[in-house]
Amino acid sequence: MKKHNFSAGPCILPTSVIEKAAAAVLNFNDDHLSLIEISHRSKPFVDVMEKARKLALELLGLENKGYQALYLQGGASLQFLMVAYNLLEKKAAYLNTGTWANNALKEAKIFGETVEVASSKDLNYSYIPKNYTIPTDVDYFHVTSNNTIFGTQMKEFPATNVPLICDMSSDIFSRQLDFSKFDLIYAGAQKNMGPAGATLVVVKEELLGKVSRAIPSILDYKVHISKESMFNTPPVFSVYVSLLTLEWLRDLGGISFIENVNNQKAKLLYDEIDRNPLFVGFAAKEDRSNMNVTFNLVDEKFKTTFDTLWKEANISGINGHRSVGGYRASMYNALPLYSVQALVDVMQELERRS
Amino acid sequence: MKKHNFSAGPCILPTSVIEKAAAAVLNFNDDHLSLIEISHRSKPFVDVMEKARKLALELLGLENKGYQALYLQGGASLQFLMVAYNLLEKKAAYLNTGTWANNALKEAKIFGETVEVASSKDLNYSYIPKNYTIPTDVDYFHVTSNNTIFGTQMKEFPATNVPLICDMSSDIFSRQLDFSKFDLIYAGAQKNMGPAGATLVVVKEELLGKVSRAIPSILDYKVHISKESMFNTPPVFSVYVSLLTLEWLRDLGGISFIENVNNQKAKLLYDEIDRNPLFVGFAAKEDRSNMNVTFNLVDEKFKTTFDTLWKEANISGINGHRSVGGYRASMYNALPLYSVQALVDVMQELERRS
Repeated sequence: MKKHNFSAGPCILPTSVIEKAAAAVLNFNDDHLSLIEISHRSKPFVDVMEKARKLALELLGLENKGYQALYLQGGASLQFLMVAYNLLEKKAAYLNTGTWANNALKEAKIFGETVEVASSKDLNYSYIPKNYTIPTDVDYFHVTSNNTIFGTQMKEFPATNVPLICDMSSDIFSRQLDFSKFDLIYAGAQKNMGPAGATLVVVKEELLGKVSRAIPSILDYKVHISKESMFNTPPVFSVYVSLLTLEWLRDLGGISFIENVNNQKAKLLYDEIDRNPLFVGFAAKEDRSNMNVTFNLVDEKFKTTFDTLWKEANISGINGHRSVGGYRASMYNALPLYSVQALVDVMQELERRS
Repeated sequence: MKKHNFSAGPCILPTSVIEKAAAAVLNFNDDHLSLIEISHRSKPFVDVMEKARKLALELLGLENKGYQALYLQGGASLQFLMVAYNLLEKKAAYLNTGTWANNALKEAKIFGETVEVASSKDLNYSYIPKNYTIPTDVDYFHVTSNNTIFGTQMKEFPATNVPLICDMSSDIFSRQLDFSKFDLIYAGAQKNMGPAGATLVVVKEELLGKVSRAIPSILDYKVHISKESMFNTPPVFSVYVSLLTLEWLRDLGGISFIENVNNQKAKLLYDEIDRNPLFVGFAAKEDRSNMNVTFNLVDEKFKTTFDTLWKEANISGINGHRSVGGYRASMYNALPLYSVQALVDVMQELERRS
């Protein structure tokens, strides 16, 4: 029996996507060759890459608006570096909302001056800072839309005259936003988009080509754009499965459909956390993430019983990150509502037994 | 019916590996979750990474000799950059044997002085330069062991007192060498080792930590070593399939076994090229690659017939690279001898019809 998979990432993918991916590993495109043993320059794979690039822009509402979509390697961690390499001439501003935001800031320091406009480190990143001022003389302002480890999510994005860069690794394609507010969005595929090994970059072309330093080819967004995301051999399998996942989302009804489902899942679990006297949420209420729900037991004496109960219920992946402790239920697009209900049932069972 | 797959890469993989990979996408480790939806920090995947790192060193005879194996992202093209970032303090020497060697050299120029010790560009890279002098004051000497596009292969490696760095993307694990002669070896997985999306780096630890520049974390070999190749989410699927491929090789008898098979395949095809009056080899005889066999028709008037014949014989992927033209038969480890025989049969059939 399939588990209720609350893994923080790599994470649950739609069953139909997994089945199609396995089939393509055996026989891709009915060509009697595996997806993983064909040339990336062959027409069937070039088609995959083109469709995946186009569909990402389409789902985000960014077609014909000067944006390009790329599927690169290296994860968000390589983007921390590429953003600074390509865009940081003198000074850049960062909002520090957690481990990954902090890592992005750290890499940028090598390339220029950085300004941390605000930080929520004082309360272990349990909230999103507000009412900060973004300097007007910076090359860009960088934010992290959702903080996987701490379970916080930016509900609003600041109006700013400088380019807005966003690490959307853990909530891209999960909610409707005006994506044209952003000049560059990047996201590791392994949350809402596919398996590990591919990273989506959506960049406004006019942003590029402005820094004076020499950029190594493989780190240069302009090079990747000019090669249509095929500068070197792309991560074929991960790009294909990302396409399957985006097609699944499109066929369901796109971001607005899934946002509604995600809202239902989040409401179900947060309502239980707030109602059930045995549990307490970690993140500030107004900043609660719809993707990663962080919560703790009020009394650790229930831990053994609770852990036994959720394991018996076939729930997997809800241990909290070591930086926060407690529990974290990650509820990405592919997680069904009934899995959240299974967790809520267990929380209520614990209450009955307490 | 499965094709005779002569693709230059991504390329043929062992059938048993493909079947196991597809099964793991459906249900990994009999845990009722897909390989691509589990945490990379889960014990089953941590075990995969550990085994894959260990087995690579074991097959190369480099265990307990001060080397570390890493599985990174970005392909050999990112290694062109990482090698220079981590090792080039003042000056580095490169042997220019083709497109990829040249690209490696190009990236290094950003980081310091470079010396091209020799080049075979004068004859369209159809041979490997010999009798060159390696400067003694360089930080390292970089070579490309096998040139996929041109079909040449280094049969011997120079004795040198400077660190020897080798791009072995297209012939690693195909022939026995004294791998301890090399200080750093890198290889994109997508030839003899697995699917696209993972890159093996085997590095002597004592080589590292000597340059004065600040190295971004994700480009720093020392960081990846300290994190046991899990600095950020690794390309889970590609690493797992690489492990399966290396296990397949180990179970066959390791590099010395496959080298023997590769020699037989190469002899069969090169003998036919030399015997058959309709064909001519591209590469200098003494530098011919056992992995990529480049050849041309003596008279283009046979092209239509030959192309029809090999397609009818269910042969795939032998069109030459645009830089060379003609044909290229790539014969990586997983290509069976009978596939080479099928190609030879077609060449003989063309001769009969001519």
